[in-house]
Amino acid sequence: MSISVFEHPFLTGLFGRDEEITGLFVSSADIAAMVRFEAALAQAQASLRLIPAAAASRISEAAGTFEPDIAALERAAARDGTIIPELVGQLRNAVGVEFASHVHFGATSQDVIDTSLILRLKRVSQILFGRIQQLSGKLGRLEATFGNNGLTAHTRMQPAIPIMAADRIASWLAPLANCQERLATVQFPVQFGGAAGTLEKFGTQGVELRKELAKRLDIADRPQWHNQRAFIADFGNLLSLISGSLGKFGLDIALMAQLGHELSLAGGGSSSAMSHKQNPVTAEVLVSLARFNAVQISGLHQAMVHEQERSGAAWMLEWMILPQMAATSGGALNLALALTDNIVRIGRH
Amino acid sequence: MSISVFEHPFLTGLFGRDEEITGLFVSSADIAAMVRFEAALAQAQASLRLIPAAAASRISEAAGTFEPDIAALERAAARDGTIIPELVGQLRNAVGVEFASHVHFGATSQDVIDTSLILRLKRVSQILFGRIQQLSGKLGRLEATFGNNGLTAHTRMQPAIPIMAADRIASWLAPLANCQERLATVQFPVQFGGAAGTLEKFGTQGVELRKELAKRLDIADRPQWHNQRAFIADFGNLLSLISGSLGKFGLDIALMAQLGHELSLAGGGSSSAMSHKQNPVTAEVLVSLARFNAVQISGLHQAMVHEQERSGAAWMLEWMILPQMAATSGGALNLALALTDNIVRIGRH
Amino acid sequence: MSISVFEHPFLTGLFGRDEEITGLFVSSADIAAMVRFEAALAQAQASLRLIPAAAASRISEAAGTFEPDIAALERAAARDGTIIPELVGQLRNAVGVEFASHVHFGATSQDVIDTSLILRLKRVSQILFGRIQQLSGKLGRLEATFGNNGLTAHTRMQPAIPIMAADRIASWLAPLANCQERLATVQFPVQFGGAAGTLEKFGTQGVELRKELAKRLDIADRPQWHNQRAFIADFGNLLSLISGSLGKFGLDIALMAQLGHELSLAGGGSSSAMSHKQNPVTAEVLVSLARFNAVQISGLHQAMVHEQERSGAAWMLEWMILPQMAATSGGALNLALALTDNIVRIGRH
Amino acid sequence: MSISVFEHPFLTGLFGRDEEITGLFVSSADIAAMVRFEAALAQAQASLRLIPAAAASRISEAAGTFEPDIAALERAAARDGTIIPELVGQLRNAVGVEFASHVHFGATSQDVIDTSLILRLKRVSQILFGRIQQLSGKLGRLEATFGNNGLTAHTRMQPAIPIMAADRIASWLAPLANCQERLATVQFPVQFGGAAGTLEKFGTQGVELRKELAKRLDIADRPQWHNQRAFIADFGNLLSLISGSLGKFGLDIALMAQLGHELSLAGGGSSSAMSHKQNPVTAEVLVSLARFNAVQISGLHQAMVHEQERSGAAWMLEWMILPQMAATSGGALNLALALTDNIVRIGRH
Repeated sequence: MSISVFEHPFLTGLFGRDEEITGLFVSSADIAAMVRFEAALAQAQASLRLIPAAAASRISEAAGTFEPDIAALERAAARDGTIIPELVGQLRNAVGVEFASHVHFGATSQDVIDTSLILRLKRVSQILFGRIQQLSGKLGRLEATFGNNGLTAHTRMQPAIPIMAADRIASWLAPLANCQERLATVQFPVQFGGAAGTLEKFGTQGVELRKELAKRLDIADRPQWHNQRAFIADFGNLLSLISGSLGKFGLDIALMAQLGHELSLAGGGSSSAMSHKQNPVTAEVLVSLARFNAVQISGLHQAMVHEQERSGAAWMLEWMILPQMAATSGGALNLALALTDNIVRIGRH
Repeated sequence: MSISVFEHPFLTGLFGRDEEITGLFVSSADIAAMVRFEAALAQAQASLRLIPAAAASRISEAAGTFEPDIAALERAAARDGTIIPELVGQLRNAVGVEFASHVHFGATSQDVIDTSLILRLKRVSQILFGRIQQLSGKLGRLEATFGNNGLTAHTRMQPAIPIMAADRIASWLAPLANCQERLATVQFPVQFGGAAGTLEKFGTQGVELRKELAKRLDIADRPQWHNQRAFIADFGNLLSLISGSLGKFGLDIALMAQLGHELSLAGGGSSSAMSHKQNPVTAEVLVSLARFNAVQISGLHQAMVHEQERSGAAWMLEWMILPQMAATSGGALNLALALTDNIVRIGRH
Repeated sequence: MSISVFEHPFLTGLFGRDEEITGLFVSSADIAAMVRFEAALAQAQASLRLIPAAAASRISEAAGTFEPDIAALERAAARDGTIIPELVGQLRNAVGVEFASHVHFGATSQDVIDTSLILRLKRVSQILFGRIQQLSGKLGRLEATFGNNGLTAHTRMQPAIPIMAADRIASWLAPLANCQERLATVQFPVQFGGAAGTLEKFGTQGVELRKELAKRLDIADRPQWHNQRAFIADFGNLLSLISGSLGKFGLDIALMAQLGHELSLAGGGSSSAMSHKQNPVTAEVLVSLARFNAVQISGLHQAMVHEQERSGAAWMLEWMILPQMAATSGGALNLALALTDNIVRIGRH
Repeated sequence: MSISVFEHPFLTGLFGRDEEITGLFVSSADIAAMVRFEAALAQAQASLRLIPAAAASRISEAAGTFEPDIAALERAAARDGTIIPELVGQLRNAVGVEFASHVHFGATSQDVIDTSLILRLKRVSQILFGRIQQLSGKLGRLEATFGNNGLTAHTRMQPAIPIMAADRIASWLAPLANCQERLATVQFPVQFGGAAGTLEKFGTQGVELRKELAKRLDIADRPQWHNQRAFIADFGNLLSLISGSLGKFGLDIALMAQLGHELSLAGGGSSSAMSHKQNPVTAEVLVSLARFNAVQISGLHQAMVHEQERSGAAWMLEWMILPQMAATSGGALNLALALTDNIVRIGRH
């Protein structure tokens, strides 16, 4: 309940409470996406006559009402390193003996796990896009209202020359616009390769089947990438560009609050020792979140050193890191939205 | 429930399920240690006649039965950046109007939060010590049984010269012995400085009071370190030395399993695509955990750049990282214990 | 001469000796690009009648024959944190008193330093592109020759099912193709903002001037980004995707060499203790280089937390890291080219 | 000449010019320590009658006048991954045919390389110790002079309560005292294990020989640790605790300079755009150096995942990182000394 600040009873709020994104990484969301994969696979296989149409219908139907046995999945994960053999077994039971063997046909654990992740990262991407859009709107309104106010530029932490509030706001907006554009163009790739990435069960039909599968899942058709993890590192990079840009925003706000006269902030935190203080807590958390993701991105790049056809060690490292990075960027956007709302005035008339 | 693999319904088992250590970072454990701090502080103050003895008695009594309002704490954390003002308020209510003002006298939020952390890190340290002792025992028995078996040394991933199984086991044992020794000698420092670290409410009695407080909490008396975070980075370093040493053990086991003839392993994971495989999953997770902590340690060193008398940004970065590092080292030890039990034979007769 | 392995008398060769890329980061290359900036700026300003045409001619002429006083630059760097005030002074002396004041008109140190970097990163990008093309060619020929040979797929470090050598080679080629495509599309942005990023000396002509400047330097026109460092972090990300992909290649080769029968390698290193050994040194270095860049990328993301209009601290952190990352990716490509040449056979007939 | 800021013609000064420490990592210093190892080894072996006394005399004599062929060493490094086979060959030539075979008897490349490193790290440690002592003296004098001046404590970047200058200076001094104490107690371990760590050439005399060798090199006798890298990670941790503590000092100074009235600083950097500015460049570089080492420490912890009896990949990663970390801590101390000298006044009367 509390190793992670994003799931902690009293720290969650501080770190940007993000039920929308953390909700994508709860086990039920993962299993739902996994089952969606299996249903789409059966349909794609039926469309190419690789399995009977009746099997695909039955699998889709069972997938729609499937209730996993979580306790059994947990035991399986500790034993096998993944839940997939157990989950497929449970789904086969739900499908019934006649069509059970058509479930997960020609797929491997990694296909299910990676594609489930991709489906949810796509949703993460949409959520972040929406929040950046909203934040840009708010910052734009701030610029419209206070943009002509004066500020003293600071370079190397020293007062430099006069600028306008609009100049500094622009330096918060531009990186967000860039991140938004990039989120809009990410192609989320299906992972489908079978036991060792060769789709060896499907002969010449493998590539066509993968294309059908991707189409049904509304993601991009790509050759297997199970042992080529650049997409993951690269998506993490984008997550950290977002939180890093917001870290600069947070640090600027905290420094303006420290200097005092160029910013007026509503809210802020109280102190147990000094009741007069108004701490720019949210601004500080933005810096913490930026630095956190800047630390984590290293791990995703380490995980690119992925041996042979599948590295358990490198893959599980991703599992430890990527969901936290998504929650961090999501939380940072939530906090930046709240902080922007609290800016009562920026710059001097 | 699942941003962190340590609190995930089906991944927890895979990553070494460590309820003992994760239990130290749930909010109730944190609050209990915080309340323990407040009670010890009152007692220490009474012993120096800084507050009435009756106040200390009443505070201790109230602390013993205190039930926090978690929802109110969560709202406060998001607002103030810490729960302490709200928690102190709740505790004062529990103490009653007569002695309320003696609660948290001369202390600040950071004193409570850091000392609560220290109390729990001390317990982490004891738990890890115990597990290393147990693991060393198991590895020692492995050495006793199989130590004279032959192995081929591998240098730069190439077969080198014959060695004995005892030689490789010794390279797993020695770093553990060193970590154990260091765990035994860590001095866990009380944090007590008041609003800005100067114990300004206590004049010349401040140092004596801090000593009394530390004694009651059974931790080391140290000058305030609220803005000097080397202890935290250094404890994180030790956590990562532990997981890193076990990562070497895990990688060796995984490579021996790959080469095949020099190791026989019970257990191992099954595959959804290939039922004949026996994957050395636990060994791989040890590598993941080692690399995870090796990533995280960077963040604790970043957090040493701690501005002025208290940096919210640097401090909160520690909160995001340190509990995970403790769970990682704890989980790694649990997995190493299980993996050692699964070694049926090492080396060739 | 040896803090960095890339400039070390006897380690340079081991780490991929890359005079082409290290040559872009020697001080003379930096100064040459800086002087090129100043000349292009004068020409752009003359084209908009912001300075006399004769001034631009004289500045260009002087720039062409300028010889910096390196010792004075070094003293200035220690004093000012940059060499620009001193360099501009030297260049003004070279230009002569009549037009001296037109040198560096309306620009600031950061404009010169960042644009000089960008000009050289563009060249880095071209060099890496060419090497990837060459490497892909070599790997393609390997595939053509040995692609139908058999390999045993390994998943989770265990033998899985038979694949073809072509399958594994494809997992080395695909990430390189992706990196090559990305290198080709990077837009290298001019940095030009004046003292605080507002081009305050040029009024409404600032944007037009920046466009003219970018055109003359053959880089992209972009609003000032001096305090928005996503481009740098993002280019570092691409550098690490390259070295990370080659790290996977190196690890695969080292593991194949360890298993023995699926690879035949020429070259390899000798041992001072065991003359029979053939160490896959180059393959191992590829892993080291991948992990090195995976560590460094964290620093570039930390440097995004860039305060106000210019952060000396964050900026100088980039200087410590980015050149090394470029040398690492360049060295990795050099080593991968050599390693590929040494592959005598891959897979079994 | 310039991939590293520590060896760059005009950046060296900015980053703390440290010829004392960088001089320990030039190739000649490495070779000198390596040759010292070979001579001490021969003497230790002669003392145990493992080689003739005359051989040891001749080897010591040759070692004293040995001139390496650097070009040949560089070719060897690229080929073998280390220079040792070539260096030993050159030394044997220098010793002459009669005793040539007694050079490097029973040792392996890693023994020489690691012990050479340890000898130089010991010297690094002494240099850092001396500088910390000097810096503590200077800060102590600052405290003596200005300690009673008033400062406003800042917590969470907001003004809190009045403190004395002595309070803040104490928070700079205490971590340095701790680092100094730790530097004084580091035990620098000899590495001597032979081909695979088992001293297989010496039977029961191996342990005694190692002890004699360590004694002659004035370092600690320890069992082989060639594949157990905790010492390296741990020494890196100490280096980063030093630079991290100085990063806090630098950030405090930069923030005080920004606030303006609580600090008066001589020196500071000039600006190419604003001649009135006095930039606290040195203070900023301290922050850069702290963050740089905080990034690098991750790599040394990654290198603990060291496979089997010797991992080229993990080992070479250390080579890329550790010398830079030493130069960073050394440079930071040099800069902190200079910065302290520039503090004209701290606090208000």
